[in-house]
Amino acid sequence: MAAQQRIILGIDPGTNILGYGVILVDKKSVHYVDMGVIDLRKEKDHFLKLSRIFEGVGALMERYAPDDLAIEAPFYGKNVQSMLKLGRAQGAAIAAALHRQIPVFEYAPRKVKMAITGRGDASKEQVKLLMEKTLHTSLDDAKFLDATDALAIAMCHFYQLTSPLVDTSSSRNWKSFIEAHPGRVQEGVEAEK
Amino acid sequence: MAAQQRIILGIDPGTNILGYGVILVDKKSVHYVDMGVIDLRKEKDHFLKLSRIFEGVGALMERYAPDDLAIEAPFYGKNVQSMLKLGRAQGAAIAAALHRQIPVFEYAPRKVKMAITGRGDASKEQVKLLMEKTLHTSLDDAKFLDATDALAIAMCHFYQLTSPLVDTSSSRNWKSFIEAHPGRVQEGVEAEK
Repeated sequence: MAAQQRIILGIDPGTNILGYGVILVDKKSVHYVDMGVIDLRKEKDHFLKLSRIFEGVGALMERYAPDDLAIEAPFYGKNVQSMLKLGRAQGAAIAAALHRQIPVFEYAPRKVKMAITGRGDASKEQVKLLMEKTLHTSLDDAKFLDATDALAIAMCHFYQLTSPLVDTSSSRNWKSFIEAHPGRVQEGVEAEK
Repeated sequence: MAAQQRIILGIDPGTNILGYGVILVDKKSVHYVDMGVIDLRKEKDHFLKLSRIFEGVGALMERYAPDDLAIEAPFYGKNVQSMLKLGRAQGAAIAAALHRQIPVFEYAPRKVKMAITGRGDASKEQVKLLMEKTLHTSLDDAKFLDATDALAIAMCHFYQLTSPLVDTSSSRNWKSFIEAHPGRVQEGVEAEK
């Protein structure tokens, strides 16, 4: 593979459905590779879910050999319990990447929507439509919107990599991200009250 | 090693200090093996922290070959952001165990204190004193209370294993634990408001 080609794996690791999307970046152009879900709904045991996430993401790493993993970092949630569970799911997925020395990048949901559509409050359907246009492909057979969500996270990382105007460092590091986006963190705190 | 011997690793995986404690269960008696911390405070990058947790817990698994991993499952937190970060740290630690087919058990902080001292609101110092008595050892050289906390989690699991009156299944499975302890979950929800 040419040095300027780059595989990006995007993951939306929920505790019920884990969505993933894979894109190939060739210089400045981007191509759709694959997307899908790991369905965890029938697995009732919390730890078996985490095990399936770790092994499942590991299998995706072996299959697509991504250069980067992009992941969603929500700044609000229903309650602290659901956030702990979501954090555990994300931690298992992130560990599978770091174990293979694959760097991880995180993006807030609003940032992903903004990157794809130019609007932070865009609907999932609007995100999907604009991705179909950019990737010159139909995503109609997507059974789950979690898969297109994951593809959008990968696309968001592609835009970060290719835009000279964007400071990618602010997305990678949690602390600097929070410092750079005080408004967004405030939004999270308010949602919790 | 005799079949009735059992090594339990307890872990208290914070995002700044990860405490661990190791005990050996021989039939119905328990012996202190080791305890310590992995200090993550100088590591500023969130993902490098997760990587150190995954690799560090993996190294503990190789060193002590535990039969079980016991971990703390808090039901409240400062806010959703800190819970997501804590969840990621726990997810990385849990993945290191599950990857090696080591079963994971979780206990609420109040349950740990109750198991050691008989009181759910006991102080860290009271927990430490009673553990010293049970383990016939001095824990005075413990630099960090996170290490004695982790040892207490391992001890709590020992009590679960050896008490015929306690239903251990309720601690293992998240959903059944929540169902069995509606009061505790309520407490978490209230702390968040």
